[in-house]
Amino acid sequence: MPTAEVLSQGDEVVTGQITDTNAAWISEYLTTLGFTIMHHVGVGDRLPDLVRALQTISERSDLCVCTGGLGPTDDDLTANAVAEAFARPLQLDEEALTQLEAKYARFGREMARVNERQVWLPRGATRLDNDRGTAPGFAFTERDALFVCLPGVPREMEAMFEEGVLPLLRERFQLQPARLVTLRCVGVGESDLQQALGDLQAPGLTVSFRTKLPENHLKLRFDPEISTEALVEIVESTLDRVGRWVFTVEGSPVPLPGFDTGGGHHASAVGRLIAARGHTLSTAESCTGGRIAAACTAIPGASAWFTEGVITYANAAKVRLVGVSEALLREHGAVSEPVARQMASGVRQRAGTTWGIGVTGVAGPGGGSVDKPVGLVHVAIEGPGGCTHRQLRLPGDRDQVQQLSVAAALEMLRRRLLA
Amino acid sequence: MPTAEVLSQGDEVVTGQITDTNAAWISEYLTTLGFTIMHHVGVGDRLPDLVRALQTISERSDLCVCTGGLGPTDDDLTANAVAEAFARPLQLDEEALTQLEAKYARFGREMARVNERQVWLPRGATRLDNDRGTAPGFAFTERDALFVCLPGVPREMEAMFEEGVLPLLRERFQLQPARLVTLRCVGVGESDLQQALGDLQAPGLTVSFRTKLPENHLKLRFDPEISTEALVEIVESTLDRVGRWVFTVEGSPVPLPGFDTGGGHHASAVGRLIAARGHTLSTAESCTGGRIAAACTAIPGASAWFTEGVITYANAAKVRLVGVSEALLREHGAVSEPVARQMASGVRQRAGTTWGIGVTGVAGPGGGSVDKPVGLVHVAIEGPGGCTHRQLRLPGDRDQVQQLSVAAALEMLRRRLLA
Repeated sequence: MPTAEVLSQGDEVVTGQITDTNAAWISEYLTTLGFTIMHHVGVGDRLPDLVRALQTISERSDLCVCTGGLGPTDDDLTANAVAEAFARPLQLDEEALTQLEAKYARFGREMARVNERQVWLPRGATRLDNDRGTAPGFAFTERDALFVCLPGVPREMEAMFEEGVLPLLRERFQLQPARLVTLRCVGVGESDLQQALGDLQAPGLTVSFRTKLPENHLKLRFDPEISTEALVEIVESTLDRVGRWVFTVEGSPVPLPGFDTGGGHHASAVGRLIAARGHTLSTAESCTGGRIAAACTAIPGASAWFTEGVITYANAAKVRLVGVSEALLREHGAVSEPVARQMASGVRQRAGTTWGIGVTGVAGPGGGSVDKPVGLVHVAIEGPGGCTHRQLRLPGDRDQVQQLSVAAALEMLRRRLLA
Repeated sequence: MPTAEVLSQGDEVVTGQITDTNAAWISEYLTTLGFTIMHHVGVGDRLPDLVRALQTISERSDLCVCTGGLGPTDDDLTANAVAEAFARPLQLDEEALTQLEAKYARFGREMARVNERQVWLPRGATRLDNDRGTAPGFAFTERDALFVCLPGVPREMEAMFEEGVLPLLRERFQLQPARLVTLRCVGVGESDLQQALGDLQAPGLTVSFRTKLPENHLKLRFDPEISTEALVEIVESTLDRVGRWVFTVEGSPVPLPGFDTGGGHHASAVGRLIAARGHTLSTAESCTGGRIAAACTAIPGASAWFTEGVITYANAAKVRLVGVSEALLREHGAVSEPVARQMASGVRQRAGTTWGIGVTGVAGPGGGSVDKPVGLVHVAIEGPGGCTHRQLRLPGDRDQVQQLSVAAALEMLRRRLLA
């Protein structure tokens, strides 16, 4: 197996201003492709350190993926470091300059001169276009190592890796990709997931977990030699153990009866179910403040099934927008089961949708009381078959309470759709 | 300033099974304490690689904090690597063994023999007790570098760092914490920010940028010796250059006339302005799908000024919830200036708030046309003094168009509030 390492450039990485999620993303991708990852290296914005790191890597690895340091500012040093490390003076890439100017022109903006810096590339390097940002990447071979330099912004980096770098890697290396199946879960913590999974072992299988609040991902990585039959058998036996939390399976080579295999976020899986039934959804949110609607409308094509939402933050809004009764608010308070139920049924009725969601709770840090502490959340789902309700007691800060409430509401809806 | 680096050990780190949050946590801590962080290094479970990494670090840094590889299993190699790298054979720490056996006894469990591995420490090392787990850490000096080896489990590592390592660092190093002032900006790209900043240089000042879409942060890090007067002078001269994009300044030792110094997200700064005036806000969103409301209600205490929002995704919802006229929708289409204006004034009037925001646009990837391409967004703000409108042409994918629309709307509101 070819060896690879990841070089992350930037003071923001080594001073801990940001967590280096790029390194994990790239490493996981490369491992799946069949590389052995040797090292992660993070280097601050100091030219001599970068030069030395690049030279060291060229002597010990077959591939280096470098992120960051490609922007227009003085602390963007990657191209300069490559130039110095490998005697490849920077040269203006005229085509890239034209593209860059066109990008600015398209948005009616003047291009600041300083941007030209980004299109000076080391001699002999192949440019990698960046459709989502201004800084192109580049690739070159030094000794026997392939170097790939990408921007540090994750969305740009990930797209360029998949569009520009993958073909390069396939061309150059004899890759034997591992097969990866990811079970995406909500409503469970990593330790409970691990407990339920028990001692899952099989030849050629590596199991790992990743928490991406509010989701937990269980990753099954299979050696390339494994047969599809054996793989599916392991996936099915895993689903027997943890399937109750799985909302979608990514990477399955076959359909899995009873499970969604479309991948993506929680709201994507919910959206597929709604759309497949020709149903529609509306939302009435209080403590989640629009995050359920935002999760739904983050999905391309959501307009086919999401029609409207209201954020009834003030009590007056609950009364006017979704018809919650003032008497009920007085008697039970805004954070209560009957109010959540009225929000769900009220928004559904007015919007004329198949389903309505109502959420009200105490997200904190203020607003809690002995009876109604921070983290108390009521979720109601109204739809064919009536109204269901759950009372939640959620841990964590405001952001976490909101996130977990969104997941709980979408999961209740998903289960109603499957019932 | 003393130099430091972070060494993360483990296949789970270099294969991307986990994101290395320890490195960011430690680096941020050390930077604040006054260390200059030189490198992050991640090494898999291979003894020769670890030995080489330790030796390299001993030659170039004053401090190395190493995490992971202290457990009882065969892939826990840190102590062995230290032994080999620096000729410090492992020795049984009898006291640690007694503690470990007592720990197991307390939970009524037999200690497996394999656990003894964890209490064999390199010769001359100082043990660091671990109250939350089984593996003790250790510290030693090699050449002029202090090495601190801690477990990889974040909660064990963090507690040991604060309880056991901090006193060691304070004893050994003359620590002088740096002073950090962050100018948080929106509505500007990194290159324009750099261009406007020009050649800002001052003794004891380090400037860095960080993009956190849709925000751009300009970070001014000052040497500890700098006087408050000199620091404020530099901050003020920076604000003269880039102040038009700055919505808040974090870390200023004094108030800065004309600027918010409360820190936090864009919506926090807007919320402070609204709350200070006793104003209120409501929102009518189409293409942003609830993200403006979510940004506002992410701020603790938002209920004092954010009363309600509507997500009028379908045209029928635009008509019913905020009174957009059907004739206008027919004539101009949903994505148009007059519709954005009616959304802003409609939601404001019905909610009875001081301000109303209306946003409609094409977030993509579908739904674009020649006349109304993906990225076309209309934002309107209605409030005291009337209704203002902006037409935006935003780059990027659905997520980015939504994010930039939120920032543009909040920024328009912020400027109206300041006018």
